[in-house]
Parts: sequence; structure tokens; C-alpha cells
Amino acid sequence: MDADFASQCPAPWASSDTVTLAHGGGGSLGQRLLDRLFRPHFSNPVLATAHDASVLPNPAAAIAVSTDSFVVRPLEFPGGDIGHLAICGTVNDLLMAGARPRWLSAAFILEEGLPMTTLARVVASMARTARRAGVEIVTGDTKVVDRGHGDGIYINTTGIGVLTSQAPIAPSSVQPGDAILLSGDLGRHGVAILSVREGLKFESTIESDCDLLLEPVEALLRAGLDIHCLRDLTRGGLGAALHEIAATRQVSIDIDSEAVPVCEAVRGACEVLGLDPLHVANEGRFVLFLPATQAGEALRILRQFRAEASRIGSVRPLATVPVSLRNAYGTTRVLPYLSGEQLPRIC
Amino acid sequence: MDADFASQCPAPWASSDTVTLAHGGGGSLGQRLLDRLFRPHFSNPVLATAHDASVLPNPAAAIAVSTDSFVVRPLEFPGGDIGHLAICGTVNDLLMAGARPRWLSAAFILEEGLPMTTLARVVASMARTARRAGVEIVTGDTKVVDRGHGDGIYINTTGIGVLTSQAPIAPSSVQPGDAILLSGDLGRHGVAILSVREGLKFESTIESDCDLLLEPVEALLRAGLDIHCLRDLTRGGLGAALHEIAATRQVSIDIDSEAVPVCEAVRGACEVLGLDPLHVANEGRFVLFLPATQAGEALRILRQFRAEASRIGSVRPLATVPVSLRNAYGTTRVLPYLSGEQLPRIC
Repeated sequence: MDADFASQCPAPWASSDTVTLAHGGGGSLGQRLLDRLFRPHFSNPVLATAHDASVLPNPAAAIAVSTDSFVVRPLEFPGGDIGHLAICGTVNDLLMAGARPRWLSAAFILEEGLPMTTLARVVASMARTARRAGVEIVTGDTKVVDRGHGDGIYINTTGIGVLTSQAPIAPSSVQPGDAILLSGDLGRHGVAILSVREGLKFESTIESDCDLLLEPVEALLRAGLDIHCLRDLTRGGLGAALHEIAATRQVSIDIDSEAVPVCEAVRGACEVLGLDPLHVANEGRFVLFLPATQAGEALRILRQFRAEASRIGSVRPLATVPVSLRNAYGTTRVLPYLSGEQLPRIC
Repeated sequence: MDADFASQCPAPWASSDTVTLAHGGGGSLGQRLLDRLFRPHFSNPVLATAHDASVLPNPAAAIAVSTDSFVVRPLEFPGGDIGHLAICGTVNDLLMAGARPRWLSAAFILEEGLPMTTLARVVASMARTARRAGVEIVTGDTKVVDRGHGDGIYINTTGIGVLTSQAPIAPSSVQPGDAILLSGDLGRHGVAILSVREGLKFESTIESDCDLLLEPVEALLRAGLDIHCLRDLTRGGLGAALHEIAATRQVSIDIDSEAVPVCEAVRGACEVLGLDPLHVANEGRFVLFLPATQAGEALRILRQFRAEASRIGSVRPLATVPVSLRNAYGTTRVLPYLSGEQLPRIC
């Protein structure tokens, strides 16, 4: 149990305590779980009202909304856990629309028999990441399913952000001629999950890149760049993101494969595992589309946060191939659109 | 498959098709599920933008937010299904805060092997209820978990509503002297679920009361009544709702047990099953707290929607017993606060 949590909640249960079906009923046990485990971490004036719905101030601007359920296995992995992931995932999705993340809901589906100490660690982790992101968890829900119908913890977070930019930051704004920038190296999250799941050992532990994208995105927005589109590279990785944007906007995309940063450890692991890093999930990386004339300035900003940030390609009018990869010899190949994630339950 | 669905989506899959893990990956199979199953039902201009987050207009007022995950077993039951329930539950929670429900997110955790036709029926049911409620499903998510780690379909809905009343409608507004009104008879949802789960047969099928509370709540608000609090009677039933409000507001509540309507079929089933209808979950009933002088007018309005609506009690200053029940002979007993729902996975 982490120190932060222990100091706030001095042992409200024994280390052998587990979640029971009655914790998910509408009675005093559920109330106790709420009062002793969730409220000490997620406390804020809105959550304190204890009503069916939480009332938030008038946002006085257009709002962005995003939802994600998290079913990652295992619950804790090198570089993160399901709680940290559940905050980063939804906060990042709001950022990708150019919104400032403000409020989150958190809904838990717990499996009967889950150790309370595991739940406590995950909730403490969520609270820490939410604080760093400057978001408030304003409403929540807990359900318990019988043993064998869950996998410890599933979490849904739904986020509300306030739009800060006038021009829409979306696939529909992408233009032929746009430069495509990548915020960092690829593949760490997927490889970290797979390594721990399969009990693989590499020379050095590969940690997930799971993180908030708040700082680089806010720096880009502050610089007044004409950002056309942002997209984080989660399920399906860079490959799926580029295919979705190309299909939505009806354009083609050229990628310089030598410019796509992948660290040695991830490259090695991918070779052993038979994975293509371009299709592996990330939880702290994004691509940026903007006019080529502004690419240098944007890259300078991105590199303040991650040195490996890179300009990886450009957009051109629709051709027969939606996404092509060019290598150092000038040979091009088609980047396929995979039918599904190479690794199930990555997030 | 219902007619509405069949007409919109002429057989996009064979009747033997099931959900696979790849449908939850970020690839073309997931995209196909979205395009062929979800979009035809949930289509609206916001959802069509296909981005990480959906952008909504400036609400220009305070907003209410509510989240619930639904894990009801079985997925389909007399009087409803998990899709209908997932819309009603969140829409009703927003109404209980005096908000006009506007936008919903919908996130699915599907179990590998789920028949596509089951998913299609549930999604069609959600779409129908959302249309009736006047809410738009603006963003969504689909995850697939491996067989044995789910139970067909779990759904999270998170709703945003726009506040319409100035005075807060919340437990904190309840006053000693307030009258307590109940919008209809109790216990149908819990008994309907339990009957089908346990294969029990009663003389007549008891249907769930699962329904939108939009019409009675809007009629009450339109009448300009000084509504202090609204609370729907889901997990834990009337008992849990009264206990939570009494504890939040630090008041005591007196209930006239003869005034609490329970239909003959539910009363009989509860006797056989050893349940107290006051603690059984409902999905289409609520209590209303308001000044006693306005109770007659409020009751008249409630009875336009359900003849069994009744004035069931009143609020008094805090005493030793939080919630008491008085019977026809004038004897009072303590209404206990149960530790958990009598029936797990009721919603």
C-alpha cells in the first residue's frame, strides 16, 4: 500500500478483507466502501453532495466528452496500473480534441473476492494522476459481479473538458500538405504488458509509456500553432490511428519509416515476439498534423518533453494506398490496416 | 431481432456470428462493429465526427453529470433488458438532480462469444429508449474480454444534463416538516429479475417497472413546486434511499407503512421469496420531498402518471431512529438499513 494512501486511511480493513457481492448493493456496506475507500481519495466539494447526479458550474464554452472502459490485464504492470491508465486514457482523449480536461466520472466493476488492498492501491493511483492532471472526480459508481464474471477490476472513466481553441482540432481538419509529427518513441506500453503477462525477461525491464499528455499539448496550444489534428496512439498503435484519419478525411499518408523512433529494447522485444512496433499500443504518445511551415516550431516544442519526437511524414491527396511507408532506400510498402489489436486487453 | 433494427441493418452478419477478442482491438474489425452495429442506431452529428472526444455545444448553464455501470443478470428480463435499463438509469439520475438530460456516453464491455444478434437487440433497445428520452449518445467505447471474464454485456452510461431549476434539488435541501410522496408501487423490478433468474412461475408474469421518469418529473418542475429532493429507488429500494437522505441531512423520517403501495402479485412473490418490498430495487419509481402545503398538488400531478402514487410520510427533526414505520394500529417499528441489496446484480 502506498504511503500517500496509508497516511490518509489508517487501516480501515484487514489485509485479508475482500470485496463481497454485498458491497455492490445499495446498503450500508456499499456506503462504507464509498466513505472509507473512495471519498478520502476523490474528495472535492461536488462529490461531497452525495446525490444521484453531481452538479457542475456552467462551463461557459463548448465542451468535449470522452468515455473509455479499461480492462487491462494484469491490473499492475511496469510503469503503471489500471487506475493510472484510466485517468491518463480519458484525460488524453479530451486533450486530443483541444479541450482542457476538467471533470471525470469513475465507475468500477469489481469481482467478488478482490483484495481490498489491491483496490486501495488502484484508487490511490487514480487520485494521484487525477491531481497531476488537474481534474476532479465528481461522480462515481461501484458494481460487484460474482466470482468468475470479471477480472478483479474494470474501470470506466468519462471525462468532460472545456474547449479552448476556436478551430476544430479533429481528423476533419487534416489537409494535404500537412506535416505529421510523432511525440516520442513507440511500443513501450504494449511490450511492457506482454512481457509481464507472458513472464518474459529482457535485459532491462521495459516500462509502459502510460502518462498524461497535458504538458506537451498545452505547450503546443499556447504557442498559437495552427493545429489540425491530434491523435493518441492507443489500441492498434500508430498504424490504426493513421488509417482512421486517412479514411475519415479521405486523404493518403506517407510515412518515412526511418524517422519513426523505436528504442532498442522495444525493437528487440518486438523481433522476438513477432510484433510490428507500428501496430503496438502506446498510452503516452500522439501524432500531430499541422501545416508544414509550422513543423519546425512544433518539433522544437515536442522535443522539450521527449527528445525522440520526430517528423515522420506528410499528408497528400487521396491515392490508391491510404498509408505508405518509405524506407532509407526509397522503397515504399503499404502499411496494412490490421483487423484487430495484436494483443487483447491492452487497455 | 426487432423489426426496427432489422429494417435499418439488413443482416450485416450471420445469426451464428459472435463477438471475438479482435473486435475490441483498434483495427478494422472494431471499426466494422462500430460502423455496422452502433452507428446505425446511435447516429447523430456529434457521433459522426469519429474522434477521440466528442464536442458539444456550450450548455450555457450549470450541468449535472451521472455515471452508472450496468451488470444486470439476465441481459433480458420481463419488462426490459440491459440496454433499456442503461438509458433509464442514467437519465433518471439526471432528472433526480432537476436537470434536463441531454447527452449520454455508452461504453460496452463484451464477453468473447457473445452472439451478435443479442448485442444488436440490446443496442436497438438502447437507441429506442434514448430517442424517447430526447438524449443523444455522443461518444462510446467497446472493449472485449476473454470468455469467462464477463457475462455477455456490461454497459456504462454517463449522462450530462442541463440544470433547469435555480434552487438545488438534493438531499441537502430536505427540511423537517417536508411531506414525502412516492411515485408508484414498489418492488416490480427486483421481483421480475429474481423470478426469471430462479425460474419461478407466479400466476401472472411480473414485469419490471424499468422506465424513464422524464414525464412525471418534468410535470412537477413545470408546476413550479418548491421541490426539495427527488430520489429514484434503485439498489436497496425505498429503505436505502430514505436512510441515505436521513443520514446526509441529519433528519428523521416517519413512514406510514399502510400508505406504501405494493401490488398483490409482488406482495405474494415477496412473501414466498422472503423479501421485504421496501428493500427491493425499482427502476421506475422515485420519492419526492417538498413542503407539506404543496403535497396535494404534487400528488395530483403524480397520479396523472401512476394511479398508485401516494403520500407516504414526513420528515421531522433528528431523533434516535433515522427511519420509522407506523402501521394501521399506530405501532411503530424501525426500518433497518440493510448491509447490501437482497439480490445481487439487479442493475
